[in-house]
Amino acid sequence: MPSLLILGAGAIGAFFGSALARQGMRVSAVCRSDYAAVKQSGFDIRSPLLGDHCFEPHEVFRAAEQAGREYDLVLLSTKVLEGVDRAELLKPVIGANTVIVLIQNGLDIEREVHAAFPRNELLSGVAFIAVSRAGAGRIHHQSAGSLTLGRYPEGLTPMAKDLAARFEASNVPCKLTQDIVQARWQKALWNATFNPISIMGGGLDTASILRTPEQRTWVRLAMTEIAQVAQAAGHPIAADMMDKLIEATLGMPAYKSSMALDFENGRPMEIEAIIGNVVRCAHHYQVPIPTLDSIYLVAKMIENKHRSERDKRSDAG
Amino acid sequence: MPSLLILGAGAIGAFFGSALARQGMRVSAVCRSDYAAVKQSGFDIRSPLLGDHCFEPHEVFRAAEQAGREYDLVLLSTKVLEGVDRAELLKPVIGANTVIVLIQNGLDIEREVHAAFPRNELLSGVAFIAVSRAGAGRIHHQSAGSLTLGRYPEGLTPMAKDLAARFEASNVPCKLTQDIVQARWQKALWNATFNPISIMGGGLDTASILRTPEQRTWVRLAMTEIAQVAQAAGHPIAADMMDKLIEATLGMPAYKSSMALDFENGRPMEIEAIIGNVVRCAHHYQVPIPTLDSIYLVAKMIENKHRSERDKRSDAG
Repeated sequence: MPSLLILGAGAIGAFFGSALARQGMRVSAVCRSDYAAVKQSGFDIRSPLLGDHCFEPHEVFRAAEQAGREYDLVLLSTKVLEGVDRAELLKPVIGANTVIVLIQNGLDIEREVHAAFPRNELLSGVAFIAVSRAGAGRIHHQSAGSLTLGRYPEGLTPMAKDLAARFEASNVPCKLTQDIVQARWQKALWNATFNPISIMGGGLDTASILRTPEQRTWVRLAMTEIAQVAQAAGHPIAADMMDKLIEATLGMPAYKSSMALDFENGRPMEIEAIIGNVVRCAHHYQVPIPTLDSIYLVAKMIENKHRSERDKRSDAG
Repeated sequence: MPSLLILGAGAIGAFFGSALARQGMRVSAVCRSDYAAVKQSGFDIRSPLLGDHCFEPHEVFRAAEQAGREYDLVLLSTKVLEGVDRAELLKPVIGANTVIVLIQNGLDIEREVHAAFPRNELLSGVAFIAVSRAGAGRIHHQSAGSLTLGRYPEGLTPMAKDLAARFEASNVPCKLTQDIVQARWQKALWNATFNPISIMGGGLDTASILRTPEQRTWVRLAMTEIAQVAQAAGHPIAADMMDKLIEATLGMPAYKSSMALDFENGRPMEIEAIIGNVVRCAHHYQVPIPTLDSIYLVAKMIENKHRSERDKRSDAG
């Protein structure tokens, strides 16, 4: 029975880990903040896809150092934040043959992990899901819930296919791709626009962002800049994708991006992973991105204020 | 003795009106919200320039209709807001020979008043002052306090010179200009950048906006776009002005723009007067302004959210 360790078992890790555990994988978890609750009674998962159930990991650890290097796979599902060295996090649990699976947000977030473990198979997953932690060990899956999976930097592997089959068997749609970087660029069109725009003005939902024709034109312009960067990086995006995304977003009930929710709840935001890496790639290829530059720089101003306020709160607490 | 009526006697109107009253003008005031307090005991003004004093207008009115058309001058000092028709406000008090004086924020804000009263002399004043209303009839002047004054659309008049002399005699520096539109463009460099940027993320001060070299470069870029629009409109701006303004702002203690204060206090914001008119002028002259477009559109998203929240509060109240 293949074994998998979830490193950073928050909402994403618990959701996808539970889906694999149901299909004959031995899934253990490293949980820092929710260790006591999960150790005692597992994860309480409410999900329209997986059903409401309790997921009890094979073993639960408080820290990666206690878990050892014996796993066939390690699933890294933390947020990608500045100042968090993911290679350091992984080091205690990666053996010579461990397959690393990233289910994380952002663009170009595989590079530093690949550089640190160049001989380990690296699978990269792009999740489309609204799932959050409702309390210690309590996971609330609101909607969507699918995955696009491939080998980084490209191609597919037997393990990728094996995982996809298990996800599908657990009712989680999993699309395999030979070009996961392309999939990340496609997701960046939405991600790198709606997320940072949503934190301006203290949490704007999709309807507020797309309210007027001028605003929709402007969001399309920002997306077009991303598509131009993607093109320069060798990942062309279909010309009608921008309009499709805007139409699709208008067709859904108004909602707040993950970054808006992080902002409102005083949590760190994945600004560098989600837009910073797109901006750096644009500068590398010398693609002009005046709209994205503006969005990124204002997001950084907001993040800095947000961080000072968080620091003040934790000083006071 | 020349007579003047302040229309919209808030902090700006009371401050500049009081300076004129001290130099032999008969100054009356229309005060809507603070009528009772001002009628009873005048304005209580705390000011490092004028000294702490009580300014009792010659007459106090609750509405313009009660004031009549007998004034030599009418000083309009309201905020310039969408949906507020300033020509309508002025109509009851403008006689054939009334000189209209605007001391208001924004660019191209004279046009609609000039169009409504084409035969009346129109003076336009650009104020550099931090002054606010601390309570009913209580005016708190924090810092600065100077005026640039000229005839709109250009030139000078004996009345402009007369007012400037009275201001100066009251310790309020007043610069006369033949080209008030140029003065408004110069002020727009700061105004149309720092104001709307400051409302993002719930109130950013000048230090937060200028924190990193990348942010300073970006603010300079936004200012440069404004300078290009000014140039297209026939009002060239000195090439070193952008750097001078950024240096000067960095040299002052961190502070929040008037728009940030309006935002934080749930008050309407002068977005159209301050940046919207710059954006429209750019579009008229077909000057590309990708940075300003972004700032403007995000400011509009924020304003819309801000307005819905204000409406909700007043529904509840």
